Amino acid sequence: MFSLDYITSRITPLNQNTMVVVKKRLDSLTKPIGSLGRLEDIVVRLAGIKGHMYPEVDKKCVIVMCADNGVVAEGVSSCPKDVTAKVTQNFTRGITGINIFTRHTNSDLVIVDIGVDAKLEHPQIINRKVKWGTDNIAKGPAMSRDEAVKAIEIGIDIISQRVDQGIRLFGTGEMGIGNTTTSGAIAAVYADCPIEHVVGRGAGLTREDYQNKMNIVKKSIEINQPDKDDPIDVLAKVGGLDIAGLAGCFIGAAYHKTPIIIDGFISAAAALIASKINPLVKEYILPSHGSAEPGAEVVMKMLNMQPMLNLGMRLGEGTGAALAFHIVDAAVAAYTQMGTFEDADIEQYEPLE
Amino acid sequence: MFSLDYITSRITPLNQNTMVVVKKRLDSLTKPIGSLGRLEDIVVRLAGIKGHMYPEVDKKCVIVMCADNGVVAEGVSSCPKDVTAKVTQNFTRGITGINIFTRHTNSDLVIVDIGVDAKLEHPQIINRKVKWGTDNIAKGPAMSRDEAVKAIEIGIDIISQRVDQGIRLFGTGEMGIGNTTTSGAIAAVYADCPIEHVVGRGAGLTREDYQNKMNIVKKSIEINQPDKDDPIDVLAKVGGLDIAGLAGCFIGAAYHKTPIIIDGFISAAAALIASKINPLVKEYILPSHGSAEPGAEVVMKMLNMQPMLNLGMRLGEGTGAALAFHIVDAAVAAYTQMGTFEDADIEQYEPLE
Repeated sequence: MFSLDYITSRITPLNQNTMVVVKKRLDSLTKPIGSLGRLEDIVVRLAGIKGHMYPEVDKKCVIVMCADNGVVAEGVSSCPKDVTAKVTQNFTRGITGINIFTRHTNSDLVIVDIGVDAKLEHPQIINRKVKWGTDNIAKGPAMSRDEAVKAIEIGIDIISQRVDQGIRLFGTGEMGIGNTTTSGAIAAVYADCPIEHVVGRGAGLTREDYQNKMNIVKKSIEINQPDKDDPIDVLAKVGGLDIAGLAGCFIGAAYHKTPIIIDGFISAAAALIASKINPLVKEYILPSHGSAEPGAEVVMKMLNMQPMLNLGMRLGEGTGAALAFHIVDAAVAAYTQMGTFEDADIEQYEPLE
Repeated sequence: MFSLDYITSRITPLNQNTMVVVKKRLDSLTKPIGSLGRLEDIVVRLAGIKGHMYPEVDKKCVIVMCADNGVVAEGVSSCPKDVTAKVTQNFTRGITGINIFTRHTNSDLVIVDIGVDAKLEHPQIINRKVKWGTDNIAKGPAMSRDEAVKAIEIGIDIISQRVDQGIRLFGTGEMGIGNTTTSGAIAAVYADCPIEHVVGRGAGLTREDYQNKMNIVKKSIEINQPDKDDPIDVLAKVGGLDIAGLAGCFIGAAYHKTPIIIDGFISAAAALIASKINPLVKEYILPSHGSAEPGAEVVMKMLNMQPMLNLGMRLGEGTGAALAFHIVDAAVAAYTQMGTFEDADIEQYEPLE
């Protein structure tokens, strides 16, 4: 297993030459120039990421990082803490949202216990527990800096293994009761906006509990004083193990020149941390859906990304990322299978303005 | 073949009872209530449309209405008129965008010549030519009222045949150089907004040609004085045969209690006309993507619909509708395959606020 520093220092920019060639081929296809919109941007980006004119994305998986959050003790969730462990187990039973959507997109599901506060023994659950849930961010740091780095390195390692197994496109997902609170705290550290823009009602809070959740986010920042110029400090103090693991996934995917898709708010917060660790990571990340969690929009704007799907979902688990697999597949299919103007016996009719 | 009046008078509202039952089942699935967002709305709507708790959408097709528009003589398109015929022929060669996307979504492609100004002889092109292209709307009506009604009835008939063949979900598409101008004119009749909000640059116009296109849209309305209280009058005077055929598809789908998906601007204009003929039709229509054509957003707002996909596409042909098939399929898969809270051994945790 390589260290975070080793990996981070070896991430390179996209291959601009390949991107120019692919753009040119896209413009030769029998359609008005640019008329496939962001599908064209996706293809150009994939080509730049892979450094290959015909990028392959046939083998895909969603990595779901599962972990508990000590802050749940503050009543920030309408959901009992043990739901983290139960849903993680249910991922192995094929009955959750992400099971359906990975089946539907012919992709694999990788379940990682990176910090669930329960003993989970199942051949499909990868045990990489850093600790049995984080500490309560309203009272001190979620974890030590070493633990945060370890969790990131686990994310990198999981990606490396899957790349070796032939995975060519990643989706991200998470399960962790309380993780809209930790993501809200991370977003609040970086976003210059009122706290209610980054703290949502999660799985459904009453008005009073929602006010409490906002107070807890504020308190976690006041108590911990995370240093925004040090993203690992932010992650360790007000983040979570799921977020740290996913940040590692984004970094690992960039190192391996493999595209990786954001899911919702938590995953976006992890992408933000990863991009703060090395801004080149962002080039390897694609958005998916616009989550109904309000903080997601704030973080996506900081990442300068626009969702492809507008479905008002807020289930997490990687469900939005899996749905985006369809769109990426369609983009590649159009690029590789459409005829050129020459094939179509049509003069290229759009003036290049 | 039934008359438009016969069909229109037999369209009924959705089955509210089925929708209530399905909503209840959705709330019993192992996820926070409402967390699948608009996927849940889609499932509820499908159930209401079909009057069945487990709506099937396995067999799908995109109907592409192809027709020429006389207004092309005014220089409203950067694209020569004969591209309509060429692309229509290319639909049979498997090299166009919609060929790729129907293959990708395992759906059929139905190509209808409802008014191409060329002799098209191919077993895959259904010849239902009403006339050899419309007349120039800048100088008079596009077609007679009888021709408009005939084109609508052809759309209904095409839908009826496909329903008989087992199609359970329709997408709409079109090919017709000049049809962003006719759609712009229809939108301008109904929308209370500046002309530049409904007239776009189509397949790519110069600044000067764009000004001309806006002038032509204004002129077509001044000269023809379409009666906005009579949607068939609007269609006949400033519309096109592709739009009329698609309006028939929407009406036919509603009559047959079968969901049908809007594609881009032209298809949305047809949905608007169909909904003006009978407001119940709208209940049977689902949106797909947010087209880059500016008028699409205006018409979608009039229809009170929000796109599922945000990809900046403007290719037409039904490509956006086909991509939405994936989303509808995923929605049905989640609804039919996810476990309940009971299956998941979790107490339903969301307070019903």
